[in-house]
Amino acid sequence: MRRCVTHKLIIKLIMTSRGDDWSSNLQGVLLDISGVLYDSGEGDGTPIAGSIDAVKRLKSSGLKVRFCTNESQCTRQYLVDKLRRLGFDINLNEVFSPAPAACQLVRERKLHPYLLVHPDAVPDFSEFDLELTPDCVVIGDAAVSFTYERLNAAFRVLIGQENPVLISMGKGRYYKETDGLMMDVGCFMAALEYAAGCKAEVVGKPAKGFFLGAVKDMGIQPQHAVMIGDDLVNDIGGAQSCGIKGVQVRTGKFRPSDESHPTVKPDGFVDNLAQAVDFLLKDHAQ
Amino acid sequence: MRRCVTHKLIIKLIMTSRGDDWSSNLQGVLLDISGVLYDSGEGDGTPIAGSIDAVKRLKSSGLKVRFCTNESQCTRQYLVDKLRRLGFDINLNEVFSPAPAACQLVRERKLHPYLLVHPDAVPDFSEFDLELTPDCVVIGDAAVSFTYERLNAAFRVLIGQENPVLISMGKGRYYKETDGLMMDVGCFMAALEYAAGCKAEVVGKPAKGFFLGAVKDMGIQPQHAVMIGDDLVNDIGGAQSCGIKGVQVRTGKFRPSDESHPTVKPDGFVDNLAQAVDFLLKDHAQ
Repeated sequence: MRRCVTHKLIIKLIMTSRGDDWSSNLQGVLLDISGVLYDSGEGDGTPIAGSIDAVKRLKSSGLKVRFCTNESQCTRQYLVDKLRRLGFDINLNEVFSPAPAACQLVRERKLHPYLLVHPDAVPDFSEFDLELTPDCVVIGDAAVSFTYERLNAAFRVLIGQENPVLISMGKGRYYKETDGLMMDVGCFMAALEYAAGCKAEVVGKPAKGFFLGAVKDMGIQPQHAVMIGDDLVNDIGGAQSCGIKGVQVRTGKFRPSDESHPTVKPDGFVDNLAQAVDFLLKDHAQ
Repeated sequence: MRRCVTHKLIIKLIMTSRGDDWSSNLQGVLLDISGVLYDSGEGDGTPIAGSIDAVKRLKSSGLKVRFCTNESQCTRQYLVDKLRRLGFDINLNEVFSPAPAACQLVRERKLHPYLLVHPDAVPDFSEFDLELTPDCVVIGDAAVSFTYERLNAAFRVLIGQENPVLISMGKGRYYKETDGLMMDVGCFMAALEYAAGCKAEVVGKPAKGFFLGAVKDMGIQPQHAVMIGDDLVNDIGGAQSCGIKGVQVRTGKFRPSDESHPTVKPDGFVDNLAQAVDFLLKDHAQ
């Protein structure tokens, strides 16, 4: 109890030093998944201690909750099933992931995509005829499916276009799996940008439209929402850029150097999701 | 004959419009290999028409000749053997490639390299004990050996260092093989820079030291040398940045858009190496 109070003082200090006690006006919470709820890896991965209960408490508090993830190694349905197997209270319609946004861009422009994505994510793109000659590239976190052959095939699609279209499902640098850090989609996006001399269009975090879509879905204003994530730039910086508060957890890919980042300053740091929920619910109940 | 004269007028025009008739004062020629002498690909690859004879004519003209390549898919000795099999007059001591420069950097700083290079290039690094825990990364054109696993292993070495050292043997975007364009080392260098938040140290073209080393080896001044290459930025731009003239061939990775590049303007364009040698020897004989 005493420990809680001390922590509360620390986070309060950070929050109020930014000019307003925003946590008492909170109406909705956006949660990142990987590195906040669980660490991916062998099998279904491993839940982060206290996170299963934290989600349960948040959802029964009356606060609205959405899950905002750049996960693109599998379909949205597969991700939900996996998290439910791990014990999380999560439903398909609460999950915002970049694949639908990528599909929308391709559909609107009447393009034919080359999918540089994880084989398990391909079903999210079933509306497209993949037999047609591709004229754009959609890149996701393909992990070990990032082979030279597939990257080069994507490069050849891009270099063959006058105005290459590269749609990237996120631009993360790396994420944490149970056995260590893993290069994320952003690295391979950067490789293709360099190769083809083009600039990717990023869907998912940190794109403003992605966060605002999730907030709108909760029927609330950005200033009444907080994003809780482990990725300083994509979760916290992205949320803050559209007026949503951002709290960084010290789990997942968090690194001590994040606390002295030159440009992105979270509205609060917490050890993990459980601690974030402790604070938010205390303020919310007041 | 008539065709030659017309061409000569065109190239003369380009050359003299830059203020001096440099080709008459020429003492040495630097030749790129891939895309100028031959196109790599299946087997030993394919010589570019007229190039075998062009090298022969250059070498018997009295002009000094060095081969300046960023080739890092094999050892220098293997490359020379391959080119000799194809019919080129080339010797080991005439070839400048980035591996010796990379070794020198690693050696001087007493580092232990993780080699993200083509398996056939590993013997160039035999002076290092690869069993030691690595504390830097040397990246070359690993081609299909650029797997996710190996890139991620390199990333983990870099992210584990306070000041990550990434030594890149060139920074080319792509090159041409007989069956199409191939992503070059620069793309994967960019991926690792993005992942680890660091900046690579590039050895090989377009590093000034690389060109100046080759010119010094010929015992001449930069202004009396010309670089002939297919890579506008790395061959031509790199050479020009140290006072060496640069002529681009329309073979290899040349693309028509190179002729209107916003910043790099070659001292001449030619259809191929044979045509370049025609002009240079005509002027040299005058």
